[in-house]
Amino acid sequence: MTGRFITLEGGEGAGKSSNLAWLAERLREAGVPVTVTREPGGTDLAERIRAVLLDPGAETMADSTELLLVFAARAQHLEALIRPALARGDWVLCDRFMDATWAYQGAGRGFDPAAIAALESLVLRGLTPDRTLLFDVPVAQGMARAGKRSSPDRIERETVAFFERVRQCYLERAAAEPERFRLIDAGAELDAVRAELDTHLQEMLRWR
Amino acid sequence: MTGRFITLEGGEGAGKSSNLAWLAERLREAGVPVTVTREPGGTDLAERIRAVLLDPGAETMADSTELLLVFAARAQHLEALIRPALARGDWVLCDRFMDATWAYQGAGRGFDPAAIAALESLVLRGLTPDRTLLFDVPVAQGMARAGKRSSPDRIERETVAFFERVRQCYLERAAAEPERFRLIDAGAELDAVRAELDTHLQEMLRWR
Repeated sequence: MTGRFITLEGGEGAGKSSNLAWLAERLREAGVPVTVTREPGGTDLAERIRAVLLDPGAETMADSTELLLVFAARAQHLEALIRPALARGDWVLCDRFMDATWAYQGAGRGFDPAAIAALESLVLRGLTPDRTLLFDVPVAQGMARAGKRSSPDRIERETVAFFERVRQCYLERAAAEPERFRLIDAGAELDAVRAELDTHLQEMLRWR
Repeated sequence: MTGRFITLEGGEGAGKSSNLAWLAERLREAGVPVTVTREPGGTDLAERIRAVLLDPGAETMADSTELLLVFAARAQHLEALIRPALARGDWVLCDRFMDATWAYQGAGRGFDPAAIAALESLVLRGLTPDRTLLFDVPVAQGMARAGKRSSPDRIERETVAFFERVRQCYLERAAAEPERFRLIDAGAELDAVRAELDTHLQEMLRWR
């Protein structure tokens, strides 16, 4: 038996992380073996690459360097954690994955789409999430929430226009792949978000 | 005016590094503005990526991760150091470059040539060294020399068969691109190596 690959995507302050923990707990209660992870990172080595990505020091990081480091971390994460977990039947819940690269590096920063597509093909080798939960929240609301947290990292210190492009890219990807994506109104109250998430959870549990 | 890009390649113990310093000194004496650098590394950020490459910790590094980190370091090196130096007219002397990836990751470790070619195209965007000096030495002789130095890093702890594949790949690449490559018999005595190198130096000085 092979597991299921579920990714959670969304902008800043969309509540992905707390909802991911809630979803993992519900799946475990239902008897599903769960592996929880995140990108960039997810393994010791991939987290070391993440550290270089988020804190490059005084030197300006070239676009191509950033893109290659994102995919180096992803390659390690896939080979050392995600593919083995799926092979033993786990359901893998991953906080951000490939769609985030299209949204942040592609739409947000304007990196060459041909380069992203080439690296996607090279590193993923056909692996696509079985389900992607997109936590959508208006940019201003998400930024207000995220602003209450700790000091922003390099990626988080971007402009409102950047986050608008990120959000639009996510929404367009969800519209283009309705079978894979489920859109969650993450701007709603927590009870409403959890109710929506529970609907998607019940749908996924029918996979078994 | 645009500079010249000169790479030095060769296996372990071929004497690249000391001959690179000698060559840089001769070029400077001739009034050539010289930038000396190395791969993987060459800038602070690229050296941080090199550190992850050479000491990945306890976790096994996936082939694809290694390849992507090599090219991440190269992308940064190219954008932050090599291309700007060439643009201001420097002659860039680089200890290992793209041929080393074909020799070590390609022939040595057997990584997917299609992946290497895709990354080469993405990162180099057509930049090829004007001259590549290949320091060729029989594997046993090179290993004996290198063994006198400090403790081997992860790449250096490879087998003789690995280094034979590396050497053959270098020789095949030199044979395939005779206009770019100059082959140096690095197994000879130092005086003979320097005399050979001087011939190639005089040839390059005629580029001006």
